[in-house]
Amino acid sequence: MFKRIFYTAIWLGLLTGGILPAQAEFSPFKPLPAQPPIPADNPMTAAKTHLGRQLFFDPRLSAAGTHSCNSCHQVMGGGEDGRALPAGTGRQGTRNTPTVWNVGFYTIYGRDGRWTRLEEAVRHHLLDPGEMGNPTPQVLVARLQAIPGYARQFQAVFPGAAPITPETISTALAAYLRTLVAGNSPFDRFLRGEKRALSPQARRGYQEFDKIQCSSCHFWVNLSGPVPGLAFQMGEGFYELFPNFVGSEYDQKLRLLEDPGRYAVTQDEADRRLWRVASLRNVALTAPYFHNGSALTLDEAVRVMAKTQLKQNLNDQQVSDIVAFLHSLTGVFPRQTMPRLPPSPGRSVWPP
Amino acid sequence: MFKRIFYTAIWLGLLTGGILPAQAEFSPFKPLPAQPPIPADNPMTAAKTHLGRQLFFDPRLSAAGTHSCNSCHQVMGGGEDGRALPAGTGRQGTRNTPTVWNVGFYTIYGRDGRWTRLEEAVRHHLLDPGEMGNPTPQVLVARLQAIPGYARQFQAVFPGAAPITPETISTALAAYLRTLVAGNSPFDRFLRGEKRALSPQARRGYQEFDKIQCSSCHFWVNLSGPVPGLAFQMGEGFYELFPNFVGSEYDQKLRLLEDPGRYAVTQDEADRRLWRVASLRNVALTAPYFHNGSALTLDEAVRVMAKTQLKQNLNDQQVSDIVAFLHSLTGVFPRQTMPRLPPSPGRSVWPP
Repeated sequence: MFKRIFYTAIWLGLLTGGILPAQAEFSPFKPLPAQPPIPADNPMTAAKTHLGRQLFFDPRLSAAGTHSCNSCHQVMGGGEDGRALPAGTGRQGTRNTPTVWNVGFYTIYGRDGRWTRLEEAVRHHLLDPGEMGNPTPQVLVARLQAIPGYARQFQAVFPGAAPITPETISTALAAYLRTLVAGNSPFDRFLRGEKRALSPQARRGYQEFDKIQCSSCHFWVNLSGPVPGLAFQMGEGFYELFPNFVGSEYDQKLRLLEDPGRYAVTQDEADRRLWRVASLRNVALTAPYFHNGSALTLDEAVRVMAKTQLKQNLNDQQVSDIVAFLHSLTGVFPRQTMPRLPPSPGRSVWPP
Repeated sequence: MFKRIFYTAIWLGLLTGGILPAQAEFSPFKPLPAQPPIPADNPMTAAKTHLGRQLFFDPRLSAAGTHSCNSCHQVMGGGEDGRALPAGTGRQGTRNTPTVWNVGFYTIYGRDGRWTRLEEAVRHHLLDPGEMGNPTPQVLVARLQAIPGYARQFQAVFPGAAPITPETISTALAAYLRTLVAGNSPFDRFLRGEKRALSPQARRGYQEFDKIQCSSCHFWVNLSGPVPGLAFQMGEGFYELFPNFVGSEYDQKLRLLEDPGRYAVTQDEADRRLWRVASLRNVALTAPYFHNGSALTLDEAVRVMAKTQLKQNLNDQQVSDIVAFLHSLTGVFPRQTMPRLPPSPGRSVWPP
């Protein structure tokens, strides 16, 4: 079981290996950098992130103009929808919406980690009939092409014969998403040496969190394991088995065994109940919790994780201390200007 | 019929009466002021409009967190949803969503003018089970009360025993809506003396618009008739009969006779097919057109209005000239900062 928690256990070797200066006191946590790793084939430009931001807030990306990316990933809030399960265009989703804040610090995307690139994850969402509801990629492309402002901007950002494609739409959106960085939380300030940034209770919670080994999975800059390009190198993503210890009352109460996790992608029994390690940054803003949104409060989520992952029964004091620590992971959100969505003057983009 | 177009025909008296300086060359159009009339009982304050802006973008105002005011009234776009009919939470709406841009310049609210105060219109939308879907006002109030940031802000803006009520929510939202002013259009600049702000075609369209008497209804600052507090005083609102001349092919084609308009409110036969005169400001951004969204293009809307209201058959040149004029009514949209929505830390506001 333990081995399965560290699905790709290479990081332990790296931890004790050559990447850290021998003299440095080792901490499994690091302050969040100002920017996530930027892939070489999607460099950040102002024109591209501006376009991505327009697209993110534009309901014309959905089949009937009812949903934008922001409908479920509410960036003015916690970057998700606050619901147990998302309301898509065609059907209710089956998994709790993860936040888009700090999404660029993940190594894999989706609750089951099925996508290895953010661009790929975005593209899937655009084209999933149950999410944005577009029946074909062509329908979406034609709709955006008919909006003069988009036609012009895509041509400028992605010059070529076919500037608007599902790939270029996803590329611009991913570039915008990588600007969504909410760091400089009290915990970041604490890590940078500002010891009073954490309350005494949050500090007790931090010690408890480390002691019972929540930090086995929730570590490094994003508290979600290694991040390529930010000192930890890992190719395969970082998963945990959840629940790790089967048999607690929560299996039934929170329906934890119903969704097979990564098994749904690979059909490999070894992947049953494997899930991407979720970041704990801004976790106080993303209730309810877990892949099915079954835990309504952070207190409950902490209790369940301790029990099912670490076989620990926490008392009320331990829970509230750890929760105080988790509250210290709420970052500072950058001020954003609302984009103007380019019009289709005098003409509806929707058929009658 | 003519009398019914000028439902409360007092304005004609005013026009020739004492309110205009005798020497001034009369124009039925005026540039849009920077601010609409502000009711004495809802003065604008920064704290109130900030709160209203948060509420406007917050899907927690709807019964299941799926819809904010902005879902249908998209302020980053034309202030509506671009659809023929809105997708509410419970059922599809039956009337095309009007824009919230420049809404403060109306004298009556709703397509049939059933509300005389903006606050009242907002309150209705909040509580309509088919729109935001809240089953009772208490459910909505309790949900907001459980969000510490809202509890604090409402207490500051509406001090008293019960700071959060449907009335205070609507009051804050109405204050925010009155900040949504998009003026300084090419036509406004033209009216201020910048004669080249309109293209030659738009100027021809303007003359045509006036000549065939579109301006009988679409006049003054909002091109929707008189505005109290802005020189024209009228208490009862300003309606037009649509279609005025029954019998054209559009009655069937665009289903113009199905919805009885203001009759649905008053049950008075004299009010059948009476509608609030819609502002033409930013009309190029609000396709499709009419109370049922049945006209997909501005060209078609102009042709239909000329035929059904003024018994005019326009040729293609006339239509495209008038459309060029209508495009000159697109204003400049103020830059807005995205609000941060106050969290309910560690706890979902939604029941399981």
